[in-house]
Amino acid sequence: MKITEINILEEIEIENPIFIEALPGIGHVGKLAADHIIDELNATKFAEIYSPNFPPQVFVDEDGIVASMVNELYYVKEVGSDKLNFIILVGNTQGLSPEGQYGICRDILEFIKPLGIEKIYTLGGMATGQPVETPSVYGAATDNDNIDILKEHNIKIRSNDGGIVGASGLFLSMGKRFGMNGSCLMGETPGYFIDAEAAEAVLLKLSEILNFDINTDKLEERAEETREMLSKAQQMEQDLMNKATNKDRDDLRYIG
Amino acid sequence: MKITEINILEEIEIENPIFIEALPGIGHVGKLAADHIIDELNATKFAEIYSPNFPPQVFVDEDGIVASMVNELYYVKEVGSDKLNFIILVGNTQGLSPEGQYGICRDILEFIKPLGIEKIYTLGGMATGQPVETPSVYGAATDNDNIDILKEHNIKIRSNDGGIVGASGLFLSMGKRFGMNGSCLMGETPGYFIDAEAAEAVLLKLSEILNFDINTDKLEERAEETREMLSKAQQMEQDLMNKATNKDRDDLRYIG
Amino acid sequence: MKITEINILEEIEIENPIFIEALPGIGHVGKLAADHIIDELNATKFAEIYSPNFPPQVFVDEDGIVASMVNELYYVKEVGSDKLNFIILVGNTQGLSPEGQYGICRDILEFIKPLGIEKIYTLGGMATGQPVETPSVYGAATDNDNIDILKEHNIKIRSNDGGIVGASGLFLSMGKRFGMNGSCLMGETPGYFIDAEAAEAVLLKLSEILNFDINTDKLEERAEETREMLSKAQQMEQDLMNKATNKDRDDLRYIG
Amino acid sequence: MKITEINILEEIEIENPIFIEALPGIGHVGKLAADHIIDELNATKFAEIYSPNFPPQVFVDEDGIVASMVNELYYVKEVGSDKLNFIILVGNTQGLSPEGQYGICRDILEFIKPLGIEKIYTLGGMATGQPVETPSVYGAATDNDNIDILKEHNIKIRSNDGGIVGASGLFLSMGKRFGMNGSCLMGETPGYFIDAEAAEAVLLKLSEILNFDINTDKLEERAEETREMLSKAQQMEQDLMNKATNKDRDDLRYIG
Repeated sequence: MKITEINILEEIEIENPIFIEALPGIGHVGKLAADHIIDELNATKFAEIYSPNFPPQVFVDEDGIVASMVNELYYVKEVGSDKLNFIILVGNTQGLSPEGQYGICRDILEFIKPLGIEKIYTLGGMATGQPVETPSVYGAATDNDNIDILKEHNIKIRSNDGGIVGASGLFLSMGKRFGMNGSCLMGETPGYFIDAEAAEAVLLKLSEILNFDINTDKLEERAEETREMLSKAQQMEQDLMNKATNKDRDDLRYIG
Repeated sequence: MKITEINILEEIEIENPIFIEALPGIGHVGKLAADHIIDELNATKFAEIYSPNFPPQVFVDEDGIVASMVNELYYVKEVGSDKLNFIILVGNTQGLSPEGQYGICRDILEFIKPLGIEKIYTLGGMATGQPVETPSVYGAATDNDNIDILKEHNIKIRSNDGGIVGASGLFLSMGKRFGMNGSCLMGETPGYFIDAEAAEAVLLKLSEILNFDINTDKLEERAEETREMLSKAQQMEQDLMNKATNKDRDDLRYIG
Repeated sequence: MKITEINILEEIEIENPIFIEALPGIGHVGKLAADHIIDELNATKFAEIYSPNFPPQVFVDEDGIVASMVNELYYVKEVGSDKLNFIILVGNTQGLSPEGQYGICRDILEFIKPLGIEKIYTLGGMATGQPVETPSVYGAATDNDNIDILKEHNIKIRSNDGGIVGASGLFLSMGKRFGMNGSCLMGETPGYFIDAEAAEAVLLKLSEILNFDINTDKLEERAEETREMLSKAQQMEQDLMNKATNKDRDDLRYIG
Repeated sequence: MKITEINILEEIEIENPIFIEALPGIGHVGKLAADHIIDELNATKFAEIYSPNFPPQVFVDEDGIVASMVNELYYVKEVGSDKLNFIILVGNTQGLSPEGQYGICRDILEFIKPLGIEKIYTLGGMATGQPVETPSVYGAATDNDNIDILKEHNIKIRSNDGGIVGASGLFLSMGKRFGMNGSCLMGETPGYFIDAEAAEAVLLKLSEILNFDINTDKLEERAEETREMLSKAQQMEQDLMNKATNKDRDDLRYIG
């Protein structure tokens, strides 16, 4: 049943790395944060991950070059005062179906477990649906020890208030079955735009917990670029929607 | 094709157990009833079941600890005056797709059949769509002998009035192909809230049929807790929905 | 990839049988017709077919007994003045997804091909969306020879007017790849109720082509029974829909 | 996991062919263009491709003959002044799900790679959602060299403006992982009707790049035929929709 394709770019050895997951989700919070870590800490890509469950499409970059839907694994060594090693999972998409999400998560955990991973941090947004003054960071974890760590850093603990949907939740719960423990950090965000402030809030808590410095100056710039790309795509799509009814589009899809 | 993961916690021996299925469904009737049996009779969990077809999410409990989507098997021995043995299937979710439902049901039946199961009771709600004064219990069965038992206990027999959707129906019909027979007990419920009274009605009929005593005092309390958890999650979701259009949320899902 | 379960009740030998497919579809036309043939000609069930892609539910009959979602194969020998042998496929459901439809069709064709099948008739309805005075029968076929047969019996030929969706189309096109040829007979029907008249029209054309007599007196009775069962199920469902919003029902489905 | 069925009609040898993909999509632009190439250049079909993920239906042609959902591979040798060889992928449908799209694309690339393919052109439409005066052709590519070729021929380069959905995007990005490079040519089209002008624009650019002559006189005729077929199918469907509520149709689908 292993249908995820993992393309290994570099065989790595790394001591007791911490795994950071941050795929696109609510407000792009986790992804913005992790892309920023990768840039600022100069992390190195060592594997690309393709899944049949990713959306069947490509993105086009500013030069007209097509980009696959992909998840990517990076590593970076000896970060911060504790000389920690990180494995970071980023990407431009998540799986689309329950089975896809489950299979991708399991296949990635099986691939990285032999690297000696015991600790996971998953990064995401927590949608408030309302404007947020100064975004708080909320947390949840696999166990009480990790909850205590979150509390030490003044992270608010989520309590009985629904679930965490997608990779950020799944990597924690499945990670537990792989003998890993960890936490999810969620930046408060309205949830309906690319939110650099929530990403910064998450990033600062993560760097505080893991004891490393990170410059967040370029984070807003990065968010702005993402917003521009999305807004062009939305405009085009909106125009089309206004003209074509669902029915018309379905016909074009099915009948040749 | 066996992709359900069954994590065995304890190898058990048990004589001729009765299988009780009660996964979440209409009005949470079956699940409330079965969770209550497990607590009151002090049943022991012996297996956890994970499926790629469960929703790709986790729940967060009151302490901030994440909980997997899972089905669970419990056993309890020598219940009531007939010293009956029970295997009870509960959980926080059902499979999402037809194939998931089918595969999970089949894999669980294959797993528990060697324990010597011949008799099944599935518990659920029957939605009326209207307020219910005093919930009746309705029944359906795999064969006439079981229908007779239901009638002896003044359970109303469903007749040519549509189907039973989900695990409660599927375990009966597939169980038949595994050489098992049994009945489905359905508590009348409006169907749009967590219904402790319907659960109590089902529970009392089941205990009457199987000849054991059960105290239902804490059932309303349990229903209240479930309602609170759901209502927080709904509030949060509602706020988000009010702000974000479908379109916006889709964009955030697909584009990284 | 063969995941359809075929339960063989009797190993049969049969000379050069004609395969008649009539699963539930538009107006229940095909199914009514085939169920009637089976009863009137006293056909014998020799196999039951279960698929993970059937709806995850059971029906409840008038005595409260649950019935699986199932497709069934019947045979009947020496029918009519040409002493023809028939294999008839009926059931209470079709597969739900494209992959399910495809897989079920292929697995059934592989199972029955060794019986020596060369000729297929698929029976169904053609929805007009409007009241129909006297239903005509329309036809399509795998090749010109079969089109000629249809024309001889004054069956109207469909022409460039869209497609045939579901098993009636798929069994013809895939049958062709299995070395079989055949036709689809479609009774004109409004499409939104159980239509005994359209079924009768199809039945009379089929019996004319294959040269056997069939009494259609009880066909309207059969249609009436089906209507009653459906209308009870619809009433119950309607009541529920009126009370519960989609949101509520989704919560009950996912959160335990 | 290879579930696509490839029916080989002729084993071919061909030197360094260029692969042209044009399955039905936005405005039918790519499909119209490729069907026209096949006719005008007298290309030969050498393989038929069937997938469980194609829609479970058949089309009926003007003589009443049913046609499978299918993709087809054609070849044509020594085209134009550069004596180029082409492999052309056309069809009457694309896969319906992400996994279907992915699997079909991968299985076709694996099948044709041994023919020595290094270069891909995918043809499609780019929906504007608005009337288009004179359709421009837009391009995207796997790399800068191909972008340069597009620019030489005054093809507008897409830039950071969203994605390319479906086979036209996927064949490029996955082709890259198979060691192929190439471009996507997209004709500007409103997107909600069969657009012969956009197809002509794409066709002229392709023939210019690949240095062959093609007569586009019959292109509008071909578009007209496609429009007629679709409009009959739509009319019938519309009539039905107006009468039957969703609920009715679902009942007919599920309950037998």
